[in-house]
Amino acid sequence: MRSLNFYERFSRTFRENPSLSRFLVVFAVSGGGLVAYSEANVQTVGKIDELPEAESIIRHPVEARSVVEPIRNIVKKKNVNVDYWEAECYRIDAKNKKIYCRSSQDDKEEFVVDYDYLVVAMGARVNTFNTPGVEENCHYLKEVEDAQKIRRTVIDCFEKASLPNLSEDEKKRVLQFVVVGGGPTGVEFAAELHDFVSEDLVKLYPSVKNLVKITLLEATDHILNMFDKRITTFAEEKFHRDGIDLKTGEMVVKVSEKEISTKVIKTGEVSTIPYGMAVWSTGIATRPVIMDFMKQIGQANRRVLATDEWLRVEGTNSIYALGDCATINQRKVMEDISAIFQKADKDNSGTLTVKEFQEALDDICDRYPQVQLYLKNKQMSSLVDLLTESKGDVAKESIELNVEEFKSALSQVDSQMKNLPATAQVAAQQGSYLADCFNRMEECTKNPEGPLRFRESGRHRFRPFRYKHLGQFAPLGGEQTAAQLPGDWVSIGHSSQWLWYSVYASKQVSWRTRSLVVSDWMRRFIFGRDSSQI
Amino acid sequence: MRSLNFYERFSRTFRENPSLSRFLVVFAVSGGGLVAYSEANVQTVGKIDELPEAESIIRHPVEARSVVEPIRNIVKKKNVNVDYWEAECYRIDAKNKKIYCRSSQDDKEEFVVDYDYLVVAMGARVNTFNTPGVEENCHYLKEVEDAQKIRRTVIDCFEKASLPNLSEDEKKRVLQFVVVGGGPTGVEFAAELHDFVSEDLVKLYPSVKNLVKITLLEATDHILNMFDKRITTFAEEKFHRDGIDLKTGEMVVKVSEKEISTKVIKTGEVSTIPYGMAVWSTGIATRPVIMDFMKQIGQANRRVLATDEWLRVEGTNSIYALGDCATINQRKVMEDISAIFQKADKDNSGTLTVKEFQEALDDICDRYPQVQLYLKNKQMSSLVDLLTESKGDVAKESIELNVEEFKSALSQVDSQMKNLPATAQVAAQQGSYLADCFNRMEECTKNPEGPLRFRESGRHRFRPFRYKHLGQFAPLGGEQTAAQLPGDWVSIGHSSQWLWYSVYASKQVSWRTRSLVVSDWMRRFIFGRDSSQI
Repeated sequence: MRSLNFYERFSRTFRENPSLSRFLVVFAVSGGGLVAYSEANVQTVGKIDELPEAESIIRHPVEARSVVEPIRNIVKKKNVNVDYWEAECYRIDAKNKKIYCRSSQDDKEEFVVDYDYLVVAMGARVNTFNTPGVEENCHYLKEVEDAQKIRRTVIDCFEKASLPNLSEDEKKRVLQFVVVGGGPTGVEFAAELHDFVSEDLVKLYPSVKNLVKITLLEATDHILNMFDKRITTFAEEKFHRDGIDLKTGEMVVKVSEKEISTKVIKTGEVSTIPYGMAVWSTGIATRPVIMDFMKQIGQANRRVLATDEWLRVEGTNSIYALGDCATINQRKVMEDISAIFQKADKDNSGTLTVKEFQEALDDICDRYPQVQLYLKNKQMSSLVDLLTESKGDVAKESIELNVEEFKSALSQVDSQMKNLPATAQVAAQQGSYLADCFNRMEECTKNPEGPLRFRESGRHRFRPFRYKHLGQFAPLGGEQTAAQLPGDWVSIGHSSQWLWYSVYASKQVSWRTRSLVVSDWMRRFIFGRDSSQI
Repeated sequence: MRSLNFYERFSRTFRENPSLSRFLVVFAVSGGGLVAYSEANVQTVGKIDELPEAESIIRHPVEARSVVEPIRNIVKKKNVNVDYWEAECYRIDAKNKKIYCRSSQDDKEEFVVDYDYLVVAMGARVNTFNTPGVEENCHYLKEVEDAQKIRRTVIDCFEKASLPNLSEDEKKRVLQFVVVGGGPTGVEFAAELHDFVSEDLVKLYPSVKNLVKITLLEATDHILNMFDKRITTFAEEKFHRDGIDLKTGEMVVKVSEKEISTKVIKTGEVSTIPYGMAVWSTGIATRPVIMDFMKQIGQANRRVLATDEWLRVEGTNSIYALGDCATINQRKVMEDISAIFQKADKDNSGTLTVKEFQEALDDICDRYPQVQLYLKNKQMSSLVDLLTESKGDVAKESIELNVEEFKSALSQVDSQMKNLPATAQVAAQQGSYLADCFNRMEECTKNPEGPLRFRESGRHRFRPFRYKHLGQFAPLGGEQTAAQLPGDWVSIGHSSQWLWYSVYASKQVSWRTRSLVVSDWMRRFIFGRDSSQI
């Protein structure tokens, strides 16, 4: 999904630069896989088994097949020179530049691929926090198959509750749906499940409709806690009106076949909820194959694979990583502060004038994006304001700072650093960025376009990756969607729902899936949700 | 699917005749299940897991969900008083009038339902003729899930053949598709697979396109042997042009994981075909639960459950059966010939006059439909012509026959009897017929509308079931469909394809599925078949 630009642009490089022979890239699409380029021929091994928003399948219900655009169709349509192999990459051998693969077919046959450049984009696995019983008893909201299984399970619960041989208590248990995790995915799922149940299923199962209960468990004090407070409040109030049972400040400690045990975090009090279906949506963790890879490259002590700002995996020289499987380990200004001062102090006077500083400004902001964020938050127009602030009431032109004053002026900027969210939006921008880099590699090696190297000589070949946040949506059911857009614009209601639809549609890979998705919505609007089990 | 009229009409009976309390009907929809009526309340236990034409899923590809209209939706929409339980009926206890059920949920909980009247409509299972390895290694074309699995397997085969580590021979094996059975289902599937492969998949897998082979195995000398010879010839020639390998006169003797062993029937010569995917479509057999039931009611020596012409299971007095799980054991004229003669010979003269005969005519044709078929085939307008024939050149009015002459005149008519085909068309008509009988039971008990009882006094309560053949279609791929319609009208080509579409659409249960099916065809026409694996 997210690799379209990557493929397209990437392939151009190799067609236009046939000199780059034995250049091999491995690209893994969620679940394991790779694109391998070899002698002007890009090869891919992978399995597309993840949607940008898997939970949307349950919501609309969007046909899974309409959303998953097979990678071969993309390749065919874009007329790019790519080989695709459907297999799982189960081991990366960074030392010998080899990838070990296992066919996705039943026989799981194995083979090895050499690479020169490797792009790792294998996504993440569900994080169970090692809670006992989660893997065996909970549904996830990650793969297309998950969504289909959940749909079927919901209806199975209603069928079971309708059987003549069940006690009232047992019927109640079967119709207790528990969603664990109050992030956007869990909230959207709970809301959509509520709509599906209250608008459609109760009509088909009138005899059991009063026994249904939906519970949302969140370990922190509020749901949607990465969103604006207004959205959180709106969502919590809406859930309350809808009769969705919201339990915040409770964490799951154990899941058995028919019961979930929770602990109130503040009091330590443990209680159990008998349930019919449980959906686990509490965040992501690193896949075993990546953990193994991290050990090889000296990242054993980290929890997530680290790259630099150019998406190069730290500790390697020809491996890149993007998406949920990695985080960017952003360089701190303070680590380089002396080097920055030295580079900026062109006359080696031991002090920085405003003029010297202004000349280094662009490079500093380019190399350390947290500087820009800090200025923005402080509502300063440039670093010069920062200096002015530190020197008090002095005319700008006459400011001069020594290295200690410079350190002190910049001492707070690193606090602005934070990890990018694990969203498709980030991964898509990274894929596009990386494709662009590969496409202009020869050109930028000759004429580097990146910022100054403060610790070494010369410039960086490329500008670092910079994420552009386009906003985030939280569909809340009942045709209501909350949107948090750049510039703290918050929108809640029907208009956001339609905004969400149009953004979702525009994110689809091709005109074909796009129109099918829209037609699936139309179906929903016309016919309501479908409650067959197939 | 086929039970719509049944439900609708059936329920009316009970609402309009509340006196019929403790009247209970069990109705099983393919795979096991039942409708149970109890005290003016119809109850159903069943699982809809079969399509009228399961193979059509692969063809169009029609979304499974668009075709399977859940029984609860039917019930809701028709506003009928029916309880539906999703469970498998695993034992019928005819003596104690009980049905033993097992929930379709994971826990397989069991319960028992009492009945007064039982309708068995559990369909049939695939007939493997006990060929070793079929169950483990072949796909069937029966349930919705089969179609989806086959789609996925076809694409898996192409993915596997594209892997870098396979030998040329192994690639050929993986891309050898074998279809066993040259009936309409097997032929339609082979044709559709050929279209899917040659129009779509070869574009996505250009490197392996020359290795693909489709083989159709048929044990008799011709495919589609229940159709008109013109259709058979057309289909065989089309397959030859398409490069589909047609092996007639060969039966499968064994299927292993990677090889099918066949025997040429005439010579006994055995050979093996290495294959990637095999689809088994050779006809149907009786389900174990029905076999067990047959033992209870004295039908242990039969292969298929027998009913009389009123769809009443022989050896029982309150059980009915319809669809693929039963055949109508049609009464022979010769068994009743003396009784017929006696009833017709009103003046007990020992001879039948033409007048006497004409008065009994309608009842004879009603009770023994083979008489009418015989006359039609002989191009006679009535039984009187038959008598005339037997008596030679005599004036009609003066004909009189004694019992031996009467026997001799009718001696050939029983040869016209043949079993009804195992099609949805037959089952749908039977369901409709039975619903009608139940609806008018009180009325017809008072005023019987059926033919004379020749062996006893009075009349039969209802007319016997009479099948009206509306024609049969054999889609042959490449937008070509052969149609054999009543009156020996044969049509082959594009117009038949459209005829097929409209008949198929009109067979859908509701306006909702109908329009979705048509929109799925539109998708196909616009976008081509879909080759994603979800």
